[in-house]
Amino acid sequence: MKFCSRCGSEHMVWRMPEGDTRPRHVCDSCGEIFYQNPNIVAGSIPVWGEQVLLCKRAIEPRFGYWTLPAGFMENGETTAEAAARETLEEACAQVVIGELFAVFNLPQINQVYMMFLAALPALEFGPGSESLECRLCREDEIPWSELAFPTITHTLKFFFEDRRDGRFRLHFGDIVREGGEAVLLERRVQVPLTGA
Amino acid sequence: MKFCSRCGSEHMVWRMPEGDTRPRHVCDSCGEIFYQNPNIVAGSIPVWGEQVLLCKRAIEPRFGYWTLPAGFMENGETTAEAAARETLEEACAQVVIGELFAVFNLPQINQVYMMFLAALPALEFGPGSESLECRLCREDEIPWSELAFPTITHTLKFFFEDRRDGRFRLHFGDIVREGGEAVLLERRVQVPLTGA
Repeated sequence: MKFCSRCGSEHMVWRMPEGDTRPRHVCDSCGEIFYQNPNIVAGSIPVWGEQVLLCKRAIEPRFGYWTLPAGFMENGETTAEAAARETLEEACAQVVIGELFAVFNLPQINQVYMMFLAALPALEFGPGSESLECRLCREDEIPWSELAFPTITHTLKFFFEDRRDGRFRLHFGDIVREGGEAVLLERRVQVPLTGA
Repeated sequence: MKFCSRCGSEHMVWRMPEGDTRPRHVCDSCGEIFYQNPNIVAGSIPVWGEQVLLCKRAIEPRFGYWTLPAGFMENGETTAEAAARETLEEACAQVVIGELFAVFNLPQINQVYMMFLAALPALEFGPGSESLECRLCREDEIPWSELAFPTITHTLKFFFEDRRDGRFRLHFGDIVREGGEAVLLERRVQVPLTGA
């Protein structure tokens, strides 16, 4: 931030406001404090029988790589509405959003992914403006080496594993970069709640 | 937004950028687009035997009302880390964060609550700077009419219900204002995933 969006002053500083615990963008002229917080990326796993619907990205980052429909949640909507909207925008598909299936924290890029199971009620889909191509894939047709993001790879792996097990459960974890590689730290803590 | 934080111009407009689907704050001088997205509120249900730890708020909104420790997630942390930090800040308690227990969308105020089960490993807690008082409550001691937010009321109700049932499951829903009242729309959709 170079200028204060409240008073227009150029005297922006990066410092800890009184009573706060971390530095913020602060205007030295009018005193306004500007907070920056993580964003939610909401998406769906559109299912048609044995297949799921993937999109080939027509935008950066990861142009040309495959993804599940997902994108930034907007003000005024719910996470499920965001997942449905992104699926419509990227794959021109009207899905029925089901259960929350995967939540991934990406602390290094300030994002939280929330991926939902979804049903494709009809075989109607096609590339939206952010996609080059959309395709239904069985498990053995997933282009694993050409997936856009680790969040997508893990979501698809968990989906096909759970389907084989005959039940879907919530998957929760952190994806962090360690030595150039994205590592999933799954969170399956069960705290003892009967003690004391 | 009155001034552009990139170039300092006063020519800020509220309009739909090309290729976008909704209006944004746009600088008419330098072209910068400013996005505003929902925030995550992360919190915990600190459990000690039959009791949970509540905090009496020392800040607005809802000064003097009771809450579970919760607050805005910060950049660079995970949702579980945010829940642990808020518990330390508001109740001076070091908790062990467990499973994700409740997710509530609040589309009218652009927030998503994520509440975690947590274990209090020791009877060490006390009011942080944002709390007047902290107290362990059994179910029959919860000040139901003096709780700060609907998200807290629903989280506590679900917690004690699940505990009676002997199992904790994820609760997911939207809390919307209808005629001045906060209404919870629980999401328990199970999409048929074996069709086609």
